[in-house]
Amino acid sequence: MKEIRVRSSERCQMIPITADLQAVVAESGVSEGVLFAQSLHTTGALTINENADPDVVHDLLAKLQRLAPPDEPFYRHAEGNSDSHLKTSAFGPSLCVLVSDGRLVLGTWQGVFFCEFDGPRERRVAVQIFRAE
Amino acid sequence: MKEIRVRSSERCQMIPITADLQAVVAESGVSEGVLFAQSLHTTGALTINENADPDVVHDLLAKLQRLAPPDEPFYRHAEGNSDSHLKTSAFGPSLCVLVSDGRLVLGTWQGVFFCEFDGPRERRVAVQIFRAE
Amino acid sequence: MKEIRVRSSERCQMIPITADLQAVVAESGVSEGVLFAQSLHTTGALTINENADPDVVHDLLAKLQRLAPPDEPFYRHAEGNSDSHLKTSAFGPSLCVLVSDGRLVLGTWQGVFFCEFDGPRERRVAVQIFRAE
Repeated sequence: MKEIRVRSSERCQMIPITADLQAVVAESGVSEGVLFAQSLHTTGALTINENADPDVVHDLLAKLQRLAPPDEPFYRHAEGNSDSHLKTSAFGPSLCVLVSDGRLVLGTWQGVFFCEFDGPRERRVAVQIFRAE
Repeated sequence: MKEIRVRSSERCQMIPITADLQAVVAESGVSEGVLFAQSLHTTGALTINENADPDVVHDLLAKLQRLAPPDEPFYRHAEGNSDSHLKTSAFGPSLCVLVSDGRLVLGTWQGVFFCEFDGPRERRVAVQIFRAE
Repeated sequence: MKEIRVRSSERCQMIPITADLQAVVAESGVSEGVLFAQSLHTTGALTINENADPDVVHDLLAKLQRLAPPDEPFYRHAEGNSDSHLKTSAFGPSLCVLVSDGRLVLGTWQGVFFCEFDGPRERRVAVQIFRAE
């Protein structure tokens, strides 16, 4: 198991980690297989989405903010981050990405992101890679 | 493949299954690897989230209820659980959790939950574990 | 790694791909294991949900359309598909499905779907299968 570190600077932020994961793939020597990544936090998720036009990430986060704002009159959790927990389960805490020819298999516009939903914080992502037969 | 059983007592409920999954890991003898879990139901999901303050789960379910209430004038499905199906795909039907030192790799506050969205029911979760090289 | 092709005919559409994935399992000869599938697109996801009553899929898509309509005054991305990107991360770009007795492990009502959120388009899904010990 490997671990990568991510530092966020905003409350909600999608941080590209494709290069970090690709480095773990290269180090592993695996040519064909699958990479598994898992956020070790309950207010930070992992996803694959567009890493070309930064307006896509802006729009994702702006819409999420409106669907799930931090304050709701019925929230009981005292830390003020119940929305962050919801967003984390919606986007998902773990992710699998295929590996082929020694590289992450990603479509033209795809990149892997750590999704910070309660930053700024220092975050950890655990990574494991399996070799296909 | 192993299977664990979960019994829910509410329509919407997040039930901790970390200990059940950890027992499957222990039985497998796998020290380093990845566990895969899959809900065998279309109205029950799996996620990782906070298993410390129960207000977090309360807030998650309360917000989901408001975002996707059971009744919508445009719903056609006669069983009255269209919201349950949506929540299941949003949270996700399957999950991977890393294993290291013979234990599920989970951050300080993380626990694995079966998410019941149309209970109360008896539910099944299929589990498979792979050993890393 | 294998790849399957999916052709959508609507902007938002859930297309059953269980049979395509089952064909990859059969070809692999794997009896016990896990299948990993990954959408190679940033506006198309994968999920498991009910593949019996088509009203379920209707209701899922109708509710998603209301939660995240294509037009929002705050959207900056010029392609008019910011909602598609959000839906993709909410449902998830990749998926694991257990395999047992040479078949995908699916509950009575479960089917695997490619979720088109910005069609009609020709889409690609990458697939890898691992054999359990």
